[in-house]
Amino acid sequence: MFSGAQISLYPMTDDFVEVILGAIRALEPYRPNFRIETDDISTLIVGPPEQLFPAMRDLFLAASGRGVHCVLAATVSRGCPGEPDDPICAPIAGSNHDQPLAARIAAAVRHVQAAPRTAQAVAAQFSLYPLGSGHHMDEIYGCIDFLKASGVFDRSKNFCTKLRGDAGPVFATLSEAFLRFGAPQGHVALDLKISANSPSKA
Amino acid sequence: MFSGAQISLYPMTDDFVEVILGAIRALEPYRPNFRIETDDISTLIVGPPEQLFPAMRDLFLAASGRGVHCVLAATVSRGCPGEPDDPICAPIAGSNHDQPLAARIAAAVRHVQAAPRTAQAVAAQFSLYPLGSGHHMDEIYGCIDFLKASGVFDRSKNFCTKLRGDAGPVFATLSEAFLRFGAPQGHVALDLKISANSPSKA
Repeated sequence: MFSGAQISLYPMTDDFVEVILGAIRALEPYRPNFRIETDDISTLIVGPPEQLFPAMRDLFLAASGRGVHCVLAATVSRGCPGEPDDPICAPIAGSNHDQPLAARIAAAVRHVQAAPRTAQAVAAQFSLYPLGSGHHMDEIYGCIDFLKASGVFDRSKNFCTKLRGDAGPVFATLSEAFLRFGAPQGHVALDLKISANSPSKA
Repeated sequence: MFSGAQISLYPMTDDFVEVILGAIRALEPYRPNFRIETDDISTLIVGPPEQLFPAMRDLFLAASGRGVHCVLAATVSRGCPGEPDDPICAPIAGSNHDQPLAARIAAAVRHVQAAPRTAQAVAAQFSLYPLGSGHHMDEIYGCIDFLKASGVFDRSKNFCTKLRGDAGPVFATLSEAFLRFGAPQGHVALDLKISANSPSKA
């Protein structure tokens, strides 16, 4: 399955170039498993679906750790039918789609609870798009049940869902929503913004 | 039809709060026709589908006109079935879906050519998601034909399409892609990033 993301980092500071170049070094441990290409709008990462959100988390923490207000925006995709089936994108491991929905929700919640804490508070907003046929509405409603049980659910907004909490469980929740729901071989896209150190109150 | 967008403005400067607050005044002329709500992540605009991209253009130009590197990110949606059918969101006017695809492509190109120039160069990246049933692949391929004839097509990337040119025709192209293709009453979402004054070469 082809999986990857177009990711952009927006540090709201005059030193944005330095912050971005410093943060991008956090992707080094992932480089052996990923194809990485950068242009003036975004950085493409193509690689195993389970590693996409950990890579984005580490990139974002490297930038937000400086204390500046910064946002990471990403377009994440798996199973896109128009893409070449890249050999570095293995099938989703342990998606457990053979298990009943309730068991998968419980497993996803356990994964989030086990996620390492980072001491970085974040707010995230995302939209999940199951594309084409083969996605049952049961899966979508199951994903919503999971989000509400994740411990980082903030609220539903028009066109998206908002999460809030420590970056560790927030990125873990996004990853579980992306990997464990919808048809396992289906096309799923996720539109994400995640923000740290905002001077605005929620 | 319910239509609107969650929009965020990211000025890469220490003065980001001032730039955002100044730019948001550019939405004043749209306020009588829109519902507008802001939180720490994004500003929701709900209103007529034809006015969404002009409003985003004016907001973005007000920020980019200061010369700082800035990005506007938006999640744009029409026909979302889970939303209340807001009375301020009228059906799409003049979508001409009764006309053959070739005629609609030609009309869309004419609209882009007639768009006022702004003297602001931008690069844009977007993904268009036709959701649910009722969207024919002919419509998607027709939209791609339109983009390639728009005069601002840059290239296809993984998961998205990139445009480049003057902000006037670029925003007009995005609006035409959003309004004129896919089922007229169908659910369409568009994930957009648009950048100005980047120090990076393309």
